[in-house]
Amino acid sequence: MATGKGLEGVVAAETALSDIDGKSGRLWYVGYDIHDLARNATFEEVIYLLHHLELPDESALSDLRDQLGGEREPNGFVRELLPTLAENAAPMSMLRTAVSASSAKDPDGWDTSEEANYRKAIRLCAVFPTLVAYYDRLRKELPLVPPDPTLSQAANFLWMLKGDKADDDSAHIFDVCLTLHADHTMNASTFAARVCAATLSDIHSAMAAAVAALKGPLHGGANEAVMRMLKEIKAQGGAPAAESYIKERLAAKQKIMGFGHRVYKTEDPRATHLRRMAKDLAEKTGDGSNYEISEIIERTVMDEKGLYPNVDFYAASVYGYLQIPTDLFTPVFACSRVAGWTAHVREQYADNRLIRPDHAYIGPPARDWKPITDR
Amino acid sequence: MATGKGLEGVVAAETALSDIDGKSGRLWYVGYDIHDLARNATFEEVIYLLHHLELPDESALSDLRDQLGGEREPNGFVRELLPTLAENAAPMSMLRTAVSASSAKDPDGWDTSEEANYRKAIRLCAVFPTLVAYYDRLRKELPLVPPDPTLSQAANFLWMLKGDKADDDSAHIFDVCLTLHADHTMNASTFAARVCAATLSDIHSAMAAAVAALKGPLHGGANEAVMRMLKEIKAQGGAPAAESYIKERLAAKQKIMGFGHRVYKTEDPRATHLRRMAKDLAEKTGDGSNYEISEIIERTVMDEKGLYPNVDFYAASVYGYLQIPTDLFTPVFACSRVAGWTAHVREQYADNRLIRPDHAYIGPPARDWKPITDR
Repeated sequence: MATGKGLEGVVAAETALSDIDGKSGRLWYVGYDIHDLARNATFEEVIYLLHHLELPDESALSDLRDQLGGEREPNGFVRELLPTLAENAAPMSMLRTAVSASSAKDPDGWDTSEEANYRKAIRLCAVFPTLVAYYDRLRKELPLVPPDPTLSQAANFLWMLKGDKADDDSAHIFDVCLTLHADHTMNASTFAARVCAATLSDIHSAMAAAVAALKGPLHGGANEAVMRMLKEIKAQGGAPAAESYIKERLAAKQKIMGFGHRVYKTEDPRATHLRRMAKDLAEKTGDGSNYEISEIIERTVMDEKGLYPNVDFYAASVYGYLQIPTDLFTPVFACSRVAGWTAHVREQYADNRLIRPDHAYIGPPARDWKPITDR
Repeated sequence: MATGKGLEGVVAAETALSDIDGKSGRLWYVGYDIHDLARNATFEEVIYLLHHLELPDESALSDLRDQLGGEREPNGFVRELLPTLAENAAPMSMLRTAVSASSAKDPDGWDTSEEANYRKAIRLCAVFPTLVAYYDRLRKELPLVPPDPTLSQAANFLWMLKGDKADDDSAHIFDVCLTLHADHTMNASTFAARVCAATLSDIHSAMAAAVAALKGPLHGGANEAVMRMLKEIKAQGGAPAAESYIKERLAAKQKIMGFGHRVYKTEDPRATHLRRMAKDLAEKTGDGSNYEISEIIERTVMDEKGLYPNVDFYAASVYGYLQIPTDLFTPVFACSRVAGWTAHVREQYADNRLIRPDHAYIGPPARDWKPITDR
């Protein structure tokens, strides 16, 4: 019997959506190299690619943009819940709960046809950023900024979050971030979504499970932990304190967040783009601190442990420069990954088998019942 | 590289909580045979066993009963949400959303110590039945029946649901049902909970993921499907129509819900008890219809396909006799399985590794980027 704690190296599913070569540090979405996509594609083209397995032509892309633009407002039930959630729930708990609640009033109801599931998928991609932006403005007691259907997913999110139109550079950089995070084979949240979908549970259930898994600090939560580390280093004196900060933590056998990856044995190709964008933003904003500290951390961790930065490491700096609140980093990750999650769930439905692994029993051997008076 | 669509036969985790011998049709919780537990244990003893790996003595059991009795009322935030959920959400969507929302005001907050997670686990076991009963009464516009801390989990649920104290026989039978459904190694919902917990996400996230997975018709949803089948057969004339109903469906290559199991190659030991209880209830209530039809279905499916009934098949009849609304069968399953889910999540935390399997890529080969005007 095959065994694998953590299922490392165990093939759990077939997918046409993405592929990784961990040794050479390459990543493809449906055959397209992530470097080409980061340089050329918009996030909307990536959503289309993941759901149709081809890049869209102009008319298909325009249709998808219209569809996304028209589906950004949460339904009335979820809008009613949001103020209470903004007051009581942490961001990822809000997102998990709001996504779960979204199923109740979905216009496609319990229709589980392929067409209905596609519409639900696009609706979920459209609404995630609104949930996050509304939540942030509600908790800050700021007026809500309704979605602008003429804007891209990236520009619209920054608009709803801040109430100012983002400049083209910032919108473009955020768009590339969304592209870079959109899919990544059998990561834990995608796998949770597929395990859930494989019972033929609905797509909203699968998304709630995915958000629930992404919330973990070993998965989506890592980008926030990186920013907290940058802030701690700043509080200790900034760049000059960075090397000793890292060395002390490594000496104490602590994990440095944002480094290493189960699959990549060399640089994560997404980190290459995030590092470059962090550098561009440092120059543009005239605030080099995040980038400067990050570079020192990267060099120190490489010297001491031989570990490469992963997607979370420079994403923290980029989101920091874009003035996204730190506790929204993981929800923002979800706003991108929902494209991959929904595509994986539709792929699972299309050729389904219940995902029900085996276990290794390590408990006590069979034993006789004992009445309570004899225990 | 190991491969296994659906992960059949792939060991995904070690567990001390339960074990199955699929060939001989045996099931143990922490070393105790399910037959002994069904005959002797209360559900509270099973909860204790799954969380402490030993049966409780009198004082430990009394403490646990007090703890469960004292934690049955949902927190204020969830109580506020329930009327809206009762109006808008299907039962499992309600449960998924309410469980997700419960995290926000949990008295242990973000404390993830072993002790806090144990308290959260017991609190979740205590509150699940209340969520289900309150939901049912709210949607029926009946006054809520507050939990009675002096009653067992089983008797209290029937009390909150119906507003009448259950007779001892019914309470005992329902208690045995809860015991029989409490754990079952790496079933899909438990596995979803562990995948989620392995990112070090919180226990409420893992429970939301588990409920999301249980909702699927290939998993927890099967018991409802069985009852719908019994109702259809009754509408077609009852017992005399049962054999031809099944044969027609088999001839049309349709799946008969409640039969067959990935792990058991003989009778599911839980079905033995559920069949016996369905028979007892048929005699006691003087309404033999569910049981009589079920027996004919069982014989026909065995003759035609050689498949044994699983845990869902006779559970439907039993819940029907106990007058539990059909669309609450899966939430009631959750009220039992939450004992196993929470124990598995605590076991996962105690010796954690991220569950991140591999994939087999079946998409297009690497290809060059194409500008939109060339597509």
